[in-house]
Amino acid sequence: MVVKINENYLLLKSSYIFAEIAQRVNKFQEENPKAEIIRLGIGDVTKPLPPTVLKEFKNAVDEMGQPDTFRGYGPEQGYSFLIQEIIKNDFQSRGIELDSDEVFISDGAKCDTGNIQEIFGLDNVVAVTDPVYPVYVETNVMAGRTGPMDEEGRYQKLVYLPCTAENDFVPSLPEEPVDLIYLCLPNNPTGTVLNKEELSRWVNYARENKSIILFDAAYEAYIQEDNIPHSIYEIEGAKEVAIEFRSFSKNAGFTGTRCAYTVVPKQVMAYDSEGKAQALNPLWNRRQTTKFNGVSYPIQRAAEAVYTPEGQSEIKEYINYYMENARIIRDSLEKIGLNVYGGVNSPYIWIKTPEGMDSWEFFDLLLNEVHVVGTPGSGFGPSGEGYFRITAFNTLENTKKAMERISKLSF
Amino acid sequence: MVVKINENYLLLKSSYIFAEIAQRVNKFQEENPKAEIIRLGIGDVTKPLPPTVLKEFKNAVDEMGQPDTFRGYGPEQGYSFLIQEIIKNDFQSRGIELDSDEVFISDGAKCDTGNIQEIFGLDNVVAVTDPVYPVYVETNVMAGRTGPMDEEGRYQKLVYLPCTAENDFVPSLPEEPVDLIYLCLPNNPTGTVLNKEELSRWVNYARENKSIILFDAAYEAYIQEDNIPHSIYEIEGAKEVAIEFRSFSKNAGFTGTRCAYTVVPKQVMAYDSEGKAQALNPLWNRRQTTKFNGVSYPIQRAAEAVYTPEGQSEIKEYINYYMENARIIRDSLEKIGLNVYGGVNSPYIWIKTPEGMDSWEFFDLLLNEVHVVGTPGSGFGPSGEGYFRITAFNTLENTKKAMERISKLSF
Repeated sequence: MVVKINENYLLLKSSYIFAEIAQRVNKFQEENPKAEIIRLGIGDVTKPLPPTVLKEFKNAVDEMGQPDTFRGYGPEQGYSFLIQEIIKNDFQSRGIELDSDEVFISDGAKCDTGNIQEIFGLDNVVAVTDPVYPVYVETNVMAGRTGPMDEEGRYQKLVYLPCTAENDFVPSLPEEPVDLIYLCLPNNPTGTVLNKEELSRWVNYARENKSIILFDAAYEAYIQEDNIPHSIYEIEGAKEVAIEFRSFSKNAGFTGTRCAYTVVPKQVMAYDSEGKAQALNPLWNRRQTTKFNGVSYPIQRAAEAVYTPEGQSEIKEYINYYMENARIIRDSLEKIGLNVYGGVNSPYIWIKTPEGMDSWEFFDLLLNEVHVVGTPGSGFGPSGEGYFRITAFNTLENTKKAMERISKLSF
Repeated sequence: MVVKINENYLLLKSSYIFAEIAQRVNKFQEENPKAEIIRLGIGDVTKPLPPTVLKEFKNAVDEMGQPDTFRGYGPEQGYSFLIQEIIKNDFQSRGIELDSDEVFISDGAKCDTGNIQEIFGLDNVVAVTDPVYPVYVETNVMAGRTGPMDEEGRYQKLVYLPCTAENDFVPSLPEEPVDLIYLCLPNNPTGTVLNKEELSRWVNYARENKSIILFDAAYEAYIQEDNIPHSIYEIEGAKEVAIEFRSFSKNAGFTGTRCAYTVVPKQVMAYDSEGKAQALNPLWNRRQTTKFNGVSYPIQRAAEAVYTPEGQSEIKEYINYYMENARIIRDSLEKIGLNVYGGVNSPYIWIKTPEGMDSWEFFDLLLNEVHVVGTPGSGFGPSGEGYFRITAFNTLENTKKAMERISKLSF
């Protein structure tokens, strides 16, 4: 008898996409030390922490330095001062009521969307859109809910819902029954949003099929148009079938600071092998209290400051800034004849690569010729092949410069 | 077809021990609002962040507020500025060489010791000491490596290694072959340490049996005596069979700030089903890069400051302070005739409960009669029944006061 690895890891193909990109960029930079590379690839923000957030962050750090205000372990689920602000501002303002023990503060939506599958059985059928944020897929591969990857780049047993220009990047309801459905809206990477009617179809599907929707709303702050739900709980009945993920990364610049949250309503149920309904809220609570020790206290205070009137106005300004970048990217690329999607309610612009060029070829072209880094669509799934993601998160100056450079290329 | 829960969660018995304690304490406090409760239960520190740490923490927060010094996503594995200091101070100083990609920064040893089992197969036999830190056990229950709990409080399939006064709390090597062995040294909850010869027996066992030792050294800073290894890698051959967990929680007061790290040497191997050796370092790297987004940048700077000469002298002062508490607790309890263990190389004092009284009875007695909170030994496993844990982490003043109160009790 010997110690065995989790062999599901051997099913994982290729490295995590952003690691692969980093490798190619580093190699190029080493070989071309003078090239000034502009990164429009990874979804990382560039604006600093808003002033109000910064101030409260520092005040809370100061508290940690005094015996009478020092805080050790906090609640694994997060401090109620933050949870109350979240409920009031992100949900009550849209007519959604939540109890404080339905919100779980964490250090990131990547962790939460990666960990959530732990509370579900291994025999569930998982559906993902294609293209998709790789974390949803790979965490299910690691857990053993898939077979090996086939020649076309699809893991067996996973249900892929293609989103391409042909269907306006709107996934169709699955043709075969599925148990877990990952939806990211506004979508990473395509920038697609669904309106209330479209999202209602998914909620109804989940209710009829006793499925669960894992709803990643990390980009909700970028929604500009009306009739686009910011929370899935704006849809009637969603509390019975949906778990929602939010993040402070993209609205308030917390990518390097780390804070997010997950909503698990008490009504949302899954089933045991005897067919008995089991509430997911206590399961997630058990998961978090057993494997997590809460988010750093000063960071929770920083996140709380996002909800002050000043904080709200500061983050709104940032979002407007990034959305102006998105507009510039869309306009510039359309002008040179590329087909572009997204970028209206989302910081992501999804580009059809020029005729005869696949995603990585377009990546290498932009890197080598104009020193601009984007993300190959094929890294997000087989249906992402022939597409390319550019993000609006760089500075206005760099965004303009990158577009000027790209505009000199001819396709 | 309906969505299924992870039914292993239904095997978990009772709530996480510290949650149960909190409930009883809150109930008592509500019923006795004037009672001044002293908490010597949870292993939470009370000294504020050391001044040098605080200063660098705030400086780094300031960096996050300026466009030219702002940092977004960092490396999931942690910044090299911190990894380098860790290797130099915690390992090279003891003759241990590590590469920078063998150290993984995280937000807590609870997360790391809870998540590490993910990279191992579900058919491994897991051994834990008894009593034990519940996270090791419960994360394996959740993953499905155990059967249900039997009447004596032991999960089937797990191998329990009893540690009681009869064997001086030193676990014997397993009689049946095991694959994964959790060792926490200095031990939580018993305060036991192993010297080099004793620990070598475990490393040799693991090498002979192709097992892995998961070595939790979160309390190494409390070791006072010579010949007690601070790292398992002080033992020859350990790099081939051991993963080590460290934390800034207990040495530098990071329980509410959150930073820790895990060492996975490149030599440490487990096996696939064809018997082929597979390095665990890339598996853990894949796990962390896929499911985790790194520790907050300012917190990594705060942790870096722990390794400055000023930081080192500040944390040493804190540890001496807590160890003086430990001495006072030991002396006071021995004086009233209790049998006490630990507290010499560890902030934990492990008490044999008085004749005829079980762990929770002793808990209730201390809470109700003298308003002191400790931790029932039975919460750490069946062999913890009849024992009780008291921690040295409160203030000197509260520790003295608690001991004065307990000293008035007669057993």
